[in-house]
Formats: sequence, C-alpha cells, structure tokens
Amino acid sequence: MNKQAIYHRPKSNYCYAYDNDTIHLRIRAAKGDLDNVTLVYGDKYDWENSEKMQMKFNCADENYDYFTVEIKPNTKRLAYYFLVKSDNKQYYYTEWGVAENIDKDDIYLHFFQYPYINETDVHQTPQWVKDAVFYQIFPERFYNGDESTNPEIIEKWGNSPERNNYFGGDLKGIIKKIDHLTELGVNAIYLTPIFESYSNHKYNTKDYMKVDPHFGDLETIKELVKECHKRGVRVVLDAVFNHSGYYFEPFQDVIKNGEKSQYYDWFYIKKWPIEVDPPSYDTFAFVSQMPKLNTHNKEVREYLLKVSKYWIEEVDIDGWRLDVSDEISHDFWREFRKVVKNAKEDAYIVGEIWHDSLPWLNGDQFDAIMNYPLMRACIQYIAYENMNDKEFIETINEIQMRNTKQVNEVMLNLLDSHDTSRFLTKSNGNIDKLRLAIAFLLTYTGTPSIYYGTEIGMEGGDDPDCRKTMEWDREKWDKDLFEFTKQLINLRREHKALRTGDFEWIDNLKGIIGYIRNIDEEEIIILINNHNEEKSVEIQLKDKKYISVLEGQEIENDNCMFEFNLKSYEVKVLICKN
Amino acid sequence: MNKQAIYHRPKSNYCYAYDNDTIHLRIRAAKGDLDNVTLVYGDKYDWENSEKMQMKFNCADENYDYFTVEIKPNTKRLAYYFLVKSDNKQYYYTEWGVAENIDKDDIYLHFFQYPYINETDVHQTPQWVKDAVFYQIFPERFYNGDESTNPEIIEKWGNSPERNNYFGGDLKGIIKKIDHLTELGVNAIYLTPIFESYSNHKYNTKDYMKVDPHFGDLETIKELVKECHKRGVRVVLDAVFNHSGYYFEPFQDVIKNGEKSQYYDWFYIKKWPIEVDPPSYDTFAFVSQMPKLNTHNKEVREYLLKVSKYWIEEVDIDGWRLDVSDEISHDFWREFRKVVKNAKEDAYIVGEIWHDSLPWLNGDQFDAIMNYPLMRACIQYIAYENMNDKEFIETINEIQMRNTKQVNEVMLNLLDSHDTSRFLTKSNGNIDKLRLAIAFLLTYTGTPSIYYGTEIGMEGGDDPDCRKTMEWDREKWDKDLFEFTKQLINLRREHKALRTGDFEWIDNLKGIIGYIRNIDEEEIIILINNHNEEKSVEIQLKDKKYISVLEGQEIENDNCMFEFNLKSYEVKVLICKN
Repeated sequence: MNKQAIYHRPKSNYCYAYDNDTIHLRIRAAKGDLDNVTLVYGDKYDWENSEKMQMKFNCADENYDYFTVEIKPNTKRLAYYFLVKSDNKQYYYTEWGVAENIDKDDIYLHFFQYPYINETDVHQTPQWVKDAVFYQIFPERFYNGDESTNPEIIEKWGNSPERNNYFGGDLKGIIKKIDHLTELGVNAIYLTPIFESYSNHKYNTKDYMKVDPHFGDLETIKELVKECHKRGVRVVLDAVFNHSGYYFEPFQDVIKNGEKSQYYDWFYIKKWPIEVDPPSYDTFAFVSQMPKLNTHNKEVREYLLKVSKYWIEEVDIDGWRLDVSDEISHDFWREFRKVVKNAKEDAYIVGEIWHDSLPWLNGDQFDAIMNYPLMRACIQYIAYENMNDKEFIETINEIQMRNTKQVNEVMLNLLDSHDTSRFLTKSNGNIDKLRLAIAFLLTYTGTPSIYYGTEIGMEGGDDPDCRKTMEWDREKWDKDLFEFTKQLINLRREHKALRTGDFEWIDNLKGIIGYIRNIDEEEIIILINNHNEEKSVEIQLKDKKYISVLEGQEIENDNCMFEFNLKSYEVKVLICKN
Repeated sequence: MNKQAIYHRPKSNYCYAYDNDTIHLRIRAAKGDLDNVTLVYGDKYDWENSEKMQMKFNCADENYDYFTVEIKPNTKRLAYYFLVKSDNKQYYYTEWGVAENIDKDDIYLHFFQYPYINETDVHQTPQWVKDAVFYQIFPERFYNGDESTNPEIIEKWGNSPERNNYFGGDLKGIIKKIDHLTELGVNAIYLTPIFESYSNHKYNTKDYMKVDPHFGDLETIKELVKECHKRGVRVVLDAVFNHSGYYFEPFQDVIKNGEKSQYYDWFYIKKWPIEVDPPSYDTFAFVSQMPKLNTHNKEVREYLLKVSKYWIEEVDIDGWRLDVSDEISHDFWREFRKVVKNAKEDAYIVGEIWHDSLPWLNGDQFDAIMNYPLMRACIQYIAYENMNDKEFIETINEIQMRNTKQVNEVMLNLLDSHDTSRFLTKSNGNIDKLRLAIAFLLTYTGTPSIYYGTEIGMEGGDDPDCRKTMEWDREKWDKDLFEFTKQLINLRREHKALRTGDFEWIDNLKGIIGYIRNIDEEEIIILINNHNEEKSVEIQLKDKKYISVLEGQEIENDNCMFEFNLKSYEVKVLICKN
C-alpha cells in the first residue's frame, strides 16, 4: 500500500457539515491502491457504541481514488477513523497515520473528529443560485440605451475596443435589451462595475456610492433591478474593494494633504508627495491608477461595508462578485459576509480567484468563486485538445474534490470573461467546439455563466479585445449557436437533474465521454464526442425508451441497449421517456 | 518518485505569513524520495522576474520528509511552484500536481500563491507566553487559605478525592502559597474554573460573573492577580462556554417557564418539561448537569463575550483557557478573539483540544491549544516505553509540522492535567522517568505547563484521583525532583535559546537522543537517555569547552570531541563556555 498517499483532514473539503444534520467525509488514496475503506465512527463520549460503515468509491483523478460517505450523527458529534484494506491486508488510518494496529485504550487520542455540528458554521449557499443561469455583461459594450449619458467622445458601435476608448453602453441599454436575456432564458446577470470611474471598465472607482454618469444614475440601476426582478432575473454587481481609483476622493485628499489627511492610512503610502511612476504607494498589480485600499484600517472597513449594504438595501441587488478577492484579508471578508447576508439572507457572494480557493470557501467568506480552474480544463480539453478524454475526466474530478458539495453546487462556471480571450477565439473560430463547451457547461454541476456575446458566436482576444461591443444585428449572429444555447439553457431550467442532480461519469465509453445527472426519479444522460471524427458507442441504459432532446428524436430498444453515432464535436442529451 | 505523497497547500501550515513581511513555506514528500527541492517564486504580475531558491531539509517523521524555506516578498504578494528532483529527474509541482513539463503560457493558472500578506490575517502570538513557564492549579485542592469560605462539609486535607467531595482550597490559599510559585520559578498560572458552581471542579457554572463563594469573591481574585503581577506572574482563567451548569439562572428559567422563557433558545431543548435522565436537552457529553449553550443565539454570544471582557477589564487577567473549545462554533471564537484582544492586546487564548487543531490555529481563533498530542508522545515514549528513540523523534517532528511556527512557540505543553492521570502514575512511580519528561518539557519548543504537585512527585490516577490535595509537608516531597524542576525552570528562564531558539535534533546518536537549541550566539545541547541502562556516546561539538549544567561540571576537549556517559534515564544539558 502507498501509505504516504493516504490523506484525510477534518474540517476541510475532506470532512464538513453539509447541513445541520449531515457530515460528508472523503478519503483519498493512491489510485487503485485500496480494495475498500470502512469508516468506524461514533460519539467520542460513547465510543463503546461505535459503528462501521463501508465507504463508497466516488471518483478518481490522475493520481488518486476518492471514497466518500455521508453520516448523520444523533448527537451532532462525530469521532471516527478508517479501516483501509489493500492487497487483502487491513490497516488503521487515524489522526496518527496508518498503522497495522492501534491501542484501543488510546483511542480517544487517535480518532479524527468533527467535534460538533454548529449551525453557525454550516455553509449554506443560496438556493436560487443552484437554479440560476448567469449572463455576464460588460455594460460599456452591451447597448447604448441613452444617448444623453454618452461620454464626450465615443467610437462607432462595432469598432475595435481599445484600452481607453468608449462606446456609450449603459444601464438603460441593458433595460432596453432585457428581452434578449429572457429570450435566451438566463435568470441572473452579473455586471462588471457600474460605479463612477474614469475608465471604460470602471475597476478604478472614483465614488462607490454613485452610479457612473455614463451608465445612468441611482434611478436607472433601480429600474434595471426592478425590471429584472419582474422577469425573475437576479442581479449581481461587482465589488472592487482591493483598490480604489486614483480619483477616489480619499486618495485625492492624501495627494493634497499627505500625512495630515484623515485618509492617509486608508492606503499604503510609501512616500509623499505622491508619485505615480513608479507609484509611491501600493497598488493593484503595478497599476498606479489603482491604489490598494488598507482594509486593516477600521474606517476603510466601515466604509466598504456601508457600500456593500447600501446597494442591497437601496437597490435590492442579489449579490456581489468580488474583484481581486484573494488579495484582501480573510478577516474583512468574514465581516463582509455577515453584513451582506444580514442585509439579504440569500445574497450570492462570489469571489474572483483563479486558483484552488478552499481557504475562502469554508462557509465563513464566499459562497463560491468564478471557476477559472474549470474554464482552464474546458479550454485545454475542448479548445486546444491538449487533454484527452481520460485526462479531462480526471481533471474535472480533481476540481470537484477541491471543494465541498454546497460550494460546487453554486460555483460560477464559465468559459470566458472580460479578463480572458473568448472561448471561440481560443478554439480558432471552431463553433462546434464552442457548442460542445456550452453543452458541457449547461449540463454540469454548478452555476453556468455566459459572457455576453458568447451565445451568438462573438470572438475576441485578450483584454481589451474580449470587450467588443455586443452585436445586435441578428444577421451577423450565429443563429444556430444562439438557438442551441437557448435550448440548453431551457433544458437546464426545466430539469432539476441538470441543476442539482447527482453527477456520475459513464465508465468505459470508448472515444467519447458521458455522464449521468439524476435526482429523484429524473435521469439525464449526456454524451460528448470531443473529436474531429464520428464515433459510435454501444451503451446499456436503464430504460427502454429515451428522447434525444437536441435532435428531438425518440429512441427505443427492448433490451435497453443502444447504439449511438456522434458526429465530430456532437453532444447528445438523452432523457428517459417515462 | 512517489508522486502521490507530495503535498503542499497554500494558506495552511504549509504556507503562512509568520509576520507582516515573511512567508514560511513547507513541502512534504515521501521519506527519502527527493534529492532536493527548488522553489520558483515571484510576483504574479511580474512573473518574468521570478527567482529560484533551494529549499532546506527540515525534518522527517515516520513517512515523510519536510523541506522548508522563508521568503520576504517585496510586494507582499507571492506566486510560486516547486521543482522537485528525484532519482536525478526533475518534476514541476504546481497547483495542478506533479508533471514533467508545464506550459509556460499557462503559468498564471498553474502556480500556488499566497496572494497578499494582509496584516489583519497574520497570526501574532503573545511574546510573554513564549517566555513563560505555566503552573496549572485546581483551586479546590491547592490550599485552604480562608476557613470562612469553606463548604459546609469538607474532608480532611490529604484524604482521597471523590467526584463530589470538597477540601476547602480557595483563592486566598493560592495567594498564601504564592511563594511556592516564585520559589519554583514559574511566571504564569492557569486556574481551572473559579466561577460559582455547585461542584468541586466548577465546570458547571451557575454564575459566570461571580467568583465561587467557596473560593472567595471579586476582591480575592483581584488581590490574587495583583499579587501575581507584582511578582511577574501572569494569570489565565478557564472559560467554560460550551455548556453552563444546571443551576445557571437562564437554564433554571427554562425549567420553570419552558417556551415562554426568554432563555429558551439559549440551550438546545428537545422536550419540555425538562427531564434529566436522560436529559431532554443537549449537554456536554451525556452529563445532565451541563446543558449545552447555544452560541448561535445572539444573546448568548453577547453574554459570553461580556463575560470574556469583564474579567480582563475588571480583574486584569492575562488570558483564557477554553474548555471543550472544539465543540463551539468557529464563528463564536473569531468574535471572542476580537473582543479579548481588544480588551488586552497580548492576552493568551489557549483552547482545550486533544487533537490536531489547525482549523482553530490559523490566527483568527486561538493562539494555541493544550498540547495533548505532545503529552501522548511523552507518555508513550518515556512512561510506557512503547516508542523507541527514532519513533519519538519522528512523532515529535510530526506534531511540530502540524502547526505554524508562531503557534508552536506558544503551545501549552504538558505532561498531565486535571483531566488525565498523572505522569508519575503512568510511569508506575518511576521518578527518573518523570525527571526526564520534565527536562524534555522545559527544554523543548513551546510553553511548558506543570500541573500542581507534579514538581514534588505527586501521584494520581484518572479523574478524580488526579485532583488530590496539594502536599504542603516538605518532608513528604521528593525534594530532589523539586530542586531538579526548579533548576530546569530557571535554566529556561535564563536562556532565550531554550525558549524561542531554533530546535534541531542531533543525528546519529546511538542509544540516546539529543537536540540543540540555539539563538543568536547562544547554543544549548540536551542529551537524553530514555533507557534503563547506561549509555555512552561520542559527539563532535562545535566548541572546546562546555558546562554540563545539571551536574555543574565543566568539560573540555581541544578537538571538540566529547564522550558522555549517561546513566539510565539521565539528562544532560550542555552550555558552551564562551
């Protein structure tokens, strides 16, 4: 046995409370190394009555097998260890490691434990997010709905986006194009920043309490939220709290008054008078337009918390996306969560972190992150074909095992964003690949997010090219793609199995990948051919009659044995016809 | 290479900020598997200027080697990955695992990161605790200093302790015996609970705002703290917040008024009228005298936080030991830390947890825990001789690697407590073994804590037998042990190297173990023979002249080569004579 590969840690993604009664346990071992795993568990104050339960193989990644089990301890206390069997030999795996024997008298100091399920610590993620399909909008580029708020100089809609040019997109524009959202079928939008800033992206805030005059005003955002809510569409805004803009009044005050400024400690000033090249103060990255805010300062905290609360209470927004969230203190985010959830219990808090983010996802800070690791897997597998089928499955499993179930259920899954080149550009304009990626996104666990224009086949390289103006001329749309995306969004919204159903890969599919989503009586099968050639597979299914919904075709076989031919980059979605 | 054994995780004991400028990194690999490890690190926004640094082998446990390095990033941001070499072949170890190659274009999504050192998140532990030697007192059994506060029925001092009998020990008794503390040389005391409770141990609180009348009153505890402080002795009290006592007024109100009680939600009531056997409410373990407090309830939180603050502000105590701390929510402890540190910046917060406790020790909750894992190692190795020299070294290393450096520096290390049988009882009355254990405790990393009476050779089995009355008849003391303990306490207090110096095992000592503590110019060598026979070793030291302080003997050798004979269970402490 590979003793050194075995891993478990209480109070982490390997052991957490899923709800007030339920503890989820996972254990990791070297791939193929264990015959089975048995959990020995009980109440630490009543260990004589401890019990055993077989753990289930859950999934594997490149290097490891994962076994899982769910326990509902009567007393809310759980002490446990594992019996792992390898090559027919059994070992104890306790807090002190793997051993052939343990001293039963020493058990109290041996077991792992989840000491008590405290309601306050249980990570509850918003139900609506589990049911949501997001649409991400970069407002300056979506639609110009109000000429009166135009910046002084604007480019012709459709021209090339540059770092510093403007096109006049605004909040009124989103309101005017709200039918596009409902036609597409999304039920949540995330807007990149809308507060006053001297830039087209608005990530360098001048005033956190004011809508940018080029985008509208308080009334416009209120109207937008109201119109969205009327249609069952939630609205999430972008909180840029890591740094302000250079023209943020407190920073201007520091420029003017130096140490005498009451805001001097709101930033990290290294030298005064202020210099910008290189900046004599800490910044986001090395951008002098973005002085880093000192969230250790009590007044800064109070100010930002006021902002967080204000837009929920005043405008009724449904959550916050947190810019550069990993560079702000955990302590700040813990307080932020309390303030936000207190203002709106089911507000969605989603951090921008491009990496494994468990330290932020234990229930005390964010509900989820923008799932860039998943994006990377989709790009490597589908766009670049740098990963084969098996590697993709293993990578997806690895990403899934990084976090708890409740986090995975509300992960903001994406293919592209305002910070990446567009998927279609990465796939070299191959629309079939984009279709496949969209189909995966919309049938996978977690909350899909579509970046504006992706649904109609817009292309764009790295920032600023990925921030092109939205194409409103339907003649220029990839209409098939649009219909396909609509169909999949609707499918997801109709079928709970696709939203919160269990996820299971279908084993031994040669040349394609496939998985099953199921919940209650509902079962949906997805087959994906990520190859530039037709593939045939024979699959034993559970029922006799299915509908292949994307083609609208019924299939039937008395032995439940089906043969499928998938064209290159084709996806099939099968729903049982009972 | 054993790929599956390699482990690293940012924002954990494997990657943490030690102070506002410094990040500590660790990586774990299968024992003996790696030739070397190189860190590749830089600022994620300036990766072109990334650098390389060799990591240092730090220690090994039964299964793993640990390599460490310290980095002071200019920008407070750190992105990094590892180059691991095994069998002369080099691999990349990134967030995505071990690979022979990585795509440099994809580096942004590959590296590990400590995104930014936020001052608020850096775990600062109190300096005085690093310099402290604690003495734990169970007040009912220490000394009866005031007959007027005696319980109605008290046993004769020296009689056998039972679950429910009393001996009249009180706070005045501690004040009267304060010279014992200063003679011994300790500079901190931890008292088990002193608030009003109908029990001798006082873990079932009746009134958190009142000193138990059998122990004294507000003035007595004030006097005790004042007298201690005068002598440079800090005072830590016991916070029993997991549960109250049955006679806690709010619980009595619930018994009386049921759901109409304003305190109904202060507990977890399952059925009313209240029944005690079995309890119709949640309790500590299954003890009906100890109803579990609902710290999810806002009023309960406020009440307990008020208590936490009151005793610091009113009486000037120096910290809290937290009873059953693992069964209370993390969220509560986070708020508790803020309130306590706000009331006294360098208050010591030490949790009672008997297990690996990283989830509480990241800087947002406790400073340390009572180090029961270390106690277990000492008992298995020294008292029971169930571990050999090598196993002990590996176990100590494993325990050390469980936590950050700043936590290890203030770990409350102990050999026994009011909750365990005494070390001397576990060692079957073998005083030599106890001497050896005390010597280890006082020369090892972390803060030693001596349970009252251990210094004079008191014995006692499991609770309540470990709570015997303190022996004040010096004729009955093991005077040698007392002098030995005094000597070691003084040695520790005189030598910074023993308190916060680096710790390093001396390799290849046959038949004994040894380690070096050093800081600045000071170096102290400890040699331990944990065997029932004499052992001789030859050791190459750095200097020519040493003093073997426990014997008061000077030794000298021009080649710095020394031979030592250690009698069975003998300890030698060598200090360089420069």
